[in-house]
Amino acid sequence: MSSYDTIISGGTVVTAADTFKADIGIRNGRIAAIADKLENGTEVIDATGKLVLPGGIDSHVHIAQPSGEGVVMADDFDSATRSAAFGGNTTVMPFCFQEKGQSLRDALSWYHGLAEGQCHIDVSFHLIVSDPTPQVLGQELPALAEEGYTSFKMFMTYEGLKLTDREILETLTAAKISGAMPMIHAENDDAIEFLREKAELAGETAPKYHASTRPIPVEREATHRAISLAEIVDVPLVIVHVSNREAMEEIQRARGRGLKIYGETCPQYLVLTAEDLEIPQAAKNVCSPPPRDKASQVACWEGIEQGVFDVFSSDHCPFRYEDTAGKMHPKGEKSFRWIPNGIPGVETRLPILFSEGVKKGRISLQDFVALTSTNHAKLYGLYPKKGAIAIGADADLVFWDPDKQMTISQELLHHGADYTPYEGFEVTGWPVLTMVRGKVIVQDGALVTSSEGSHVVRDKPLG
Amino acid sequence: MSSYDTIISGGTVVTAADTFKADIGIRNGRIAAIADKLENGTEVIDATGKLVLPGGIDSHVHIAQPSGEGVVMADDFDSATRSAAFGGNTTVMPFCFQEKGQSLRDALSWYHGLAEGQCHIDVSFHLIVSDPTPQVLGQELPALAEEGYTSFKMFMTYEGLKLTDREILETLTAAKISGAMPMIHAENDDAIEFLREKAELAGETAPKYHASTRPIPVEREATHRAISLAEIVDVPLVIVHVSNREAMEEIQRARGRGLKIYGETCPQYLVLTAEDLEIPQAAKNVCSPPPRDKASQVACWEGIEQGVFDVFSSDHCPFRYEDTAGKMHPKGEKSFRWIPNGIPGVETRLPILFSEGVKKGRISLQDFVALTSTNHAKLYGLYPKKGAIAIGADADLVFWDPDKQMTISQELLHHGADYTPYEGFEVTGWPVLTMVRGKVIVQDGALVTSSEGSHVVRDKPLG
Amino acid sequence: MSSYDTIISGGTVVTAADTFKADIGIRNGRIAAIADKLENGTEVIDATGKLVLPGGIDSHVHIAQPSGEGVVMADDFDSATRSAAFGGNTTVMPFCFQEKGQSLRDALSWYHGLAEGQCHIDVSFHLIVSDPTPQVLGQELPALAEEGYTSFKMFMTYEGLKLTDREILETLTAAKISGAMPMIHAENDDAIEFLREKAELAGETAPKYHASTRPIPVEREATHRAISLAEIVDVPLVIVHVSNREAMEEIQRARGRGLKIYGETCPQYLVLTAEDLEIPQAAKNVCSPPPRDKASQVACWEGIEQGVFDVFSSDHCPFRYEDTAGKMHPKGEKSFRWIPNGIPGVETRLPILFSEGVKKGRISLQDFVALTSTNHAKLYGLYPKKGAIAIGADADLVFWDPDKQMTISQELLHHGADYTPYEGFEVTGWPVLTMVRGKVIVQDGALVTSSEGSHVVRDKPLG
Amino acid sequence: MSSYDTIISGGTVVTAADTFKADIGIRNGRIAAIADKLENGTEVIDATGKLVLPGGIDSHVHIAQPSGEGVVMADDFDSATRSAAFGGNTTVMPFCFQEKGQSLRDALSWYHGLAEGQCHIDVSFHLIVSDPTPQVLGQELPALAEEGYTSFKMFMTYEGLKLTDREILETLTAAKISGAMPMIHAENDDAIEFLREKAELAGETAPKYHASTRPIPVEREATHRAISLAEIVDVPLVIVHVSNREAMEEIQRARGRGLKIYGETCPQYLVLTAEDLEIPQAAKNVCSPPPRDKASQVACWEGIEQGVFDVFSSDHCPFRYEDTAGKMHPKGEKSFRWIPNGIPGVETRLPILFSEGVKKGRISLQDFVALTSTNHAKLYGLYPKKGAIAIGADADLVFWDPDKQMTISQELLHHGADYTPYEGFEVTGWPVLTMVRGKVIVQDGALVTSSEGSHVVRDKPLG
Repeated sequence: MSSYDTIISGGTVVTAADTFKADIGIRNGRIAAIADKLENGTEVIDATGKLVLPGGIDSHVHIAQPSGEGVVMADDFDSATRSAAFGGNTTVMPFCFQEKGQSLRDALSWYHGLAEGQCHIDVSFHLIVSDPTPQVLGQELPALAEEGYTSFKMFMTYEGLKLTDREILETLTAAKISGAMPMIHAENDDAIEFLREKAELAGETAPKYHASTRPIPVEREATHRAISLAEIVDVPLVIVHVSNREAMEEIQRARGRGLKIYGETCPQYLVLTAEDLEIPQAAKNVCSPPPRDKASQVACWEGIEQGVFDVFSSDHCPFRYEDTAGKMHPKGEKSFRWIPNGIPGVETRLPILFSEGVKKGRISLQDFVALTSTNHAKLYGLYPKKGAIAIGADADLVFWDPDKQMTISQELLHHGADYTPYEGFEVTGWPVLTMVRGKVIVQDGALVTSSEGSHVVRDKPLG
Repeated sequence: MSSYDTIISGGTVVTAADTFKADIGIRNGRIAAIADKLENGTEVIDATGKLVLPGGIDSHVHIAQPSGEGVVMADDFDSATRSAAFGGNTTVMPFCFQEKGQSLRDALSWYHGLAEGQCHIDVSFHLIVSDPTPQVLGQELPALAEEGYTSFKMFMTYEGLKLTDREILETLTAAKISGAMPMIHAENDDAIEFLREKAELAGETAPKYHASTRPIPVEREATHRAISLAEIVDVPLVIVHVSNREAMEEIQRARGRGLKIYGETCPQYLVLTAEDLEIPQAAKNVCSPPPRDKASQVACWEGIEQGVFDVFSSDHCPFRYEDTAGKMHPKGEKSFRWIPNGIPGVETRLPILFSEGVKKGRISLQDFVALTSTNHAKLYGLYPKKGAIAIGADADLVFWDPDKQMTISQELLHHGADYTPYEGFEVTGWPVLTMVRGKVIVQDGALVTSSEGSHVVRDKPLG
Repeated sequence: MSSYDTIISGGTVVTAADTFKADIGIRNGRIAAIADKLENGTEVIDATGKLVLPGGIDSHVHIAQPSGEGVVMADDFDSATRSAAFGGNTTVMPFCFQEKGQSLRDALSWYHGLAEGQCHIDVSFHLIVSDPTPQVLGQELPALAEEGYTSFKMFMTYEGLKLTDREILETLTAAKISGAMPMIHAENDDAIEFLREKAELAGETAPKYHASTRPIPVEREATHRAISLAEIVDVPLVIVHVSNREAMEEIQRARGRGLKIYGETCPQYLVLTAEDLEIPQAAKNVCSPPPRDKASQVACWEGIEQGVFDVFSSDHCPFRYEDTAGKMHPKGEKSFRWIPNGIPGVETRLPILFSEGVKKGRISLQDFVALTSTNHAKLYGLYPKKGAIAIGADADLVFWDPDKQMTISQELLHHGADYTPYEGFEVTGWPVLTMVRGKVIVQDGALVTSSEGSHVVRDKPLG
Repeated sequence: MSSYDTIISGGTVVTAADTFKADIGIRNGRIAAIADKLENGTEVIDATGKLVLPGGIDSHVHIAQPSGEGVVMADDFDSATRSAAFGGNTTVMPFCFQEKGQSLRDALSWYHGLAEGQCHIDVSFHLIVSDPTPQVLGQELPALAEEGYTSFKMFMTYEGLKLTDREILETLTAAKISGAMPMIHAENDDAIEFLREKAELAGETAPKYHASTRPIPVEREATHRAISLAEIVDVPLVIVHVSNREAMEEIQRARGRGLKIYGETCPQYLVLTAEDLEIPQAAKNVCSPPPRDKASQVACWEGIEQGVFDVFSSDHCPFRYEDTAGKMHPKGEKSFRWIPNGIPGVETRLPILFSEGVKKGRISLQDFVALTSTNHAKLYGLYPKKGAIAIGADADLVFWDPDKQMTISQELLHHGADYTPYEGFEVTGWPVLTMVRGKVIVQDGALVTSSEGSHVVRDKPLG
């Protein structure tokens, strides 16, 4: 009869559809049985009183990317994946950033090299296409999609990254041909630069002008434009880090026209506002799009509740404040222009959504699992290997204590950044055990394995 | 070690979240295990090549109700539940209709009496409140909600059924207090009667005038009004049998205002149009709201794809055409007014949605399960007993052959009606085994048990 | 060559299209010439430095109507039309209210009797249909429309006034047949009564509960329903006294479906809010729909600027506060229910819109003339006799001092009410001369004629 | 006493507000009197039975512009203004096109040189900004606005014309500072080029691919983007030649956000469809945006009826078909790419709108005057000199025979093009006399003066 490497006993299993009490039997790193009572386990882990969830998948994480003038992100793959594991994640999807002139394969080699042997949880790369030459689009992208790199991101802003409309159209065409899922950072670069120069000329260089020079129309315009380009090519598109109602409405209008447009939002748009760019050490809260206002937070919650957003990600993008004496960049004091755009969040994503969403009655447990794990897996081709508590799926699980009260603080966290924008934020609900492919990675607040995360080859998206 | 009364082996399990190959172990009528391989089953049923789905739940079924002037529906509980079982359903939710002056308990006794010992699958009653006296609302409704009758329907049209706005407000207040889920048939009765009299005066009495005297504004108006009354009371509401885009937009607008409004549509709004009321024997296709046009079919599909609709039901409401020599009512020939409003459909609901929806790429298998089973269970308090393939849930399962091609015909069906509005409609995908609480009811096109369906006591809705 | 009874010299003429300096020549009470320089006038009135506008038409004025329990409005035709004249109006359209059981002709006789010889400006009656018998709809209404009574109002609330949906449908049908323009007071009576009883049971009887028992959904629901009924009959409809964005959106949606729906708003929805029902002597500010909040004021301004509203009226409905020792009704202290719904405003309508609209740059002079005069004339069949500075039109003119600063106060006004809800409100712009059919009625703050207003027979509306 | 150079007697005067019978007295080229009966005219012109309208103002006319590869438009100022005069226009607003590297003043000199002494009616230039250098924006544009060149157009497509988003932002800023009114041609150039190259690669070079390579999303995207840029700068904007509902909705949404966005549509979007690009000699119907479909025609009519469109212009842009043997360009046969984008229409604009709009009951006479004359004058600073029948305004008048039936044909017309896209189109209503500043230009189908049109210096827009 059956025997298992590990049995998780007594927990309450939660999937994107159901909640029920059951034991889970794991064999060879995969889920082999879900049953009222399982026996014959080499190891038995008690999950009594805990929710057992599909491990979090964070499909928007920046690790070890350069950020201009020698500034590099505060996390390498070791620290980022450790932090992610402590935050209840079992897979992260960082970006492999193509520099201008570089081939996608060279970029991949570089990032794989950085990740090799360093990861505590599983990792699967999105590509960033910054140089969409005919070679890149016609040869590399299709070949890499076949090899399991089935998603890529485009930028409409940032020097060295931004693509023209024509380049976006060509790159979306490559997505259509290869079956890869395109993602886009939607802000109008010309408008930002226009407003930024005007602000600087007026001596408005403090961090708060980061927000005022990227007002909502800048994001709404680019969102609608990106969607229109996808509409012209007839291809799905993920709009990442949506921050406000107007951009949400572009997604809804597009769906009303029958388009496959997917939406993502992030914790910063639920918790922070532009006022957090007016406080001392405001540089710590600079991200793009910028946090908006209370009404935008309400809007984003409505988007979560009503299905505008398919995925909830961190957009983890960590920098160190103190290394640069609070400037965050050699020229950070000269103007908000130089402050790197990004905040850490891979470890706090799940507790924030659980506490503010599930505990406050805005979303169900099923919604929580879908938004933090299952939908990511389906959208980006990780499914059915990841994102599910189902027979045959990887035993990527997190034990969740729904009643554990915690106060988020930098001391608690494991990322490479030297601060958290959520310092002092109180949450109820916390991950107490993280398991990847049947191996316990984090338990009772301690890392219990060495780096065994591996690269996940993906299928074409289900989206 | 574990042993099972029944093992379902080799099938592909489908839930509202996931699809995976697994065996299912059943003990005492409940699902006890889901695993890569199960042994020790008293009985083993091979499901190789089949999808194993949570049994269909049809939450909108009329059985043995009177329909004026001595006309009674063509199905009793025996035939209705047999037909439902053959159609892949394991639970139906018929209506217990309160006559004016009658107590809800008396009505329930009557319908329980009709159902007793007659049912082939499980049954759980919605109440129909037609006489909302203070006694009914203040005493009976709350008591019955505690006893598991946790939903009820109101009508805005039909003599003897329709409630005034004030009565709806009071009845919704009772729903709020008791935690029951209210449903509403939304058409403006005054407008229908106004148009009907005008039509009859003009000699327009053929069945097609059933459609023209209930135009879309009649439904849109009542839908918005019903939602507004629920908004004033601050209570959820299910809008049943939505037929067109304008009514859908009322649901979407309401959700945009933060209201908990649920939507239902039915096969007739995907397959029929008002032109089906202009053909010979058109009386067979009379239902309310009437089928609209092709554009409305497209709209309803969009509603299914984009989440406007939470549940897909049959609104099964069967009559016999030949018994009355094609009149369907003693006065049926005099005017469309007398033709009973309703068509059969409990047996054809799942194949139509599977074939037109899943097979044509409009919806996923997960959507199919959610729309036909899981969402019904959650909306009306049957969950987690029903609507799930999960440990502890009732073993209500259907084996689905996704490639079986069938042509719908009256000969094939088991309802009491003497026709199907879908005669000749070709579908791909068909239920080949239906099991209720672990007992096989229908297999290979034959009924294999006597009547063992039972009444299901429900919890408060999750909605 | 031409000679004129009166020449208005040196003014700036304003029409709904144009602004230009010109003299106006009047002969036999009509405008005979508009020219750079006119001579040969029996009388010459200097308008240098003044705007010369088409006289205000207030198409929503209640005069001498009963209001339950012996309470009668504070204005008779003498005081109401005097007040209107001082406010820059040359025509008012009061209501002839049909009591249950009364014929429309009897009602008209009664109100004509009250008006006879009492009016200082011209008057033309709307009918109020409260008892739509076949005789009333089939005989009286068409006959009266032929005689120039080409508009009528329906109520969806108020005991003794309210019509059922069926009655509204029948009455709208009579409008369609007779070419009369229907108007409707749109609030859901059942919902108001439901909320009112709940409030009273809770001891919530102060004036502020007048607002909370008529929330926006009550108005939005009825607005959409009224429009839907007009859509079913295929007839134009005027939605009077719109107070908020949601009701406005119903008008806009209807126009988007191709319907001829007209909108009216009033000064109270631009200047007052529900907070004015929480102050001492709040009973003075009770009207229906109730004033809302600041956001609703903004919405109503947008509606004025963007054409949602065709006419701007006062809904003048005056009562006396002190006569009843501040109760405004024998039972006024018992509950807000008994406080008559209405406030005075016929004299302050134009200054408020000019000062807040034209002076603050929200609307043009042309918009001002259209909203206060020309559109009323066209909508209700007074045009081209009224509402225009055009050859052949009645010489109904007002001289407007655009820079005169005034503070509204009860002392300043001439109505029968003993207060104004706008006490202390400062305006810029004031009427300094009012002329009806060539006769000066008010000049320099004094009444200079006896009562020479007359009844205006109307054409069918242009709407 | 007064005497007049000219008296127009017995006509029916129509303004944007009013319709009334009156004589008009003209002195020194201006309207001096409007009266029931005028005498003492040096000349008297009988207008009995005619409508007397403010002369048409066509604010979107291309004359004598180059169009690439030596192709020049088919009209010089002589023929264009003659054609306009025959079509009932008294002012046209052609474009002064700045070539790259050229100063605006040089461009103006060139076009003034071409126009000098050639014009039959009055002319006022819009600028086209194609090279927005700091000198152009900082010096020239403000200076020229002060001199009466108070409007300019930007292009988002066409090589040599198109501006980047950054350039548009800067140019809009110049508009804000100078008080000039910006106009924009909104189509996404990258998307057009992408689709065009794809089509050509597929051998799709016939004229019909002109339409398929500029689908509605191309126009909707650019419309939203242009509006967003104006929103960021906080400046009004005219969206010219809107062709479909989706672009209209962008205008409506913008107004809902409180923006001053103006809309223009043209006859081709009411009368032609993309099918007119599939007929023989289809090159004759190539214009941009391309005509769409019947539903878009319905949408544009709704926009006219409901105020989405402020002005109705011709976008007259004439070419000769036969000169190039039907190729319309040296490379016209190679690909639709080379066919000049534009069709003639200055002479047919008014009859088409009158016949299809006024005669068919869609719009009033007032709407007709507003859409074809008054609103143009107000939008672009010609008012009150132009666009009005008012004392002091230029006596720019057209006599309109509302019942004259005509069939549009090339033989009838006076433009330089050798065809009309409206050949055979039947209209009711035709201009029978055109007068500019009191001088008759066209009467009874004949030109009766030499070239006396002059340049009109404008005020800042009223918009």
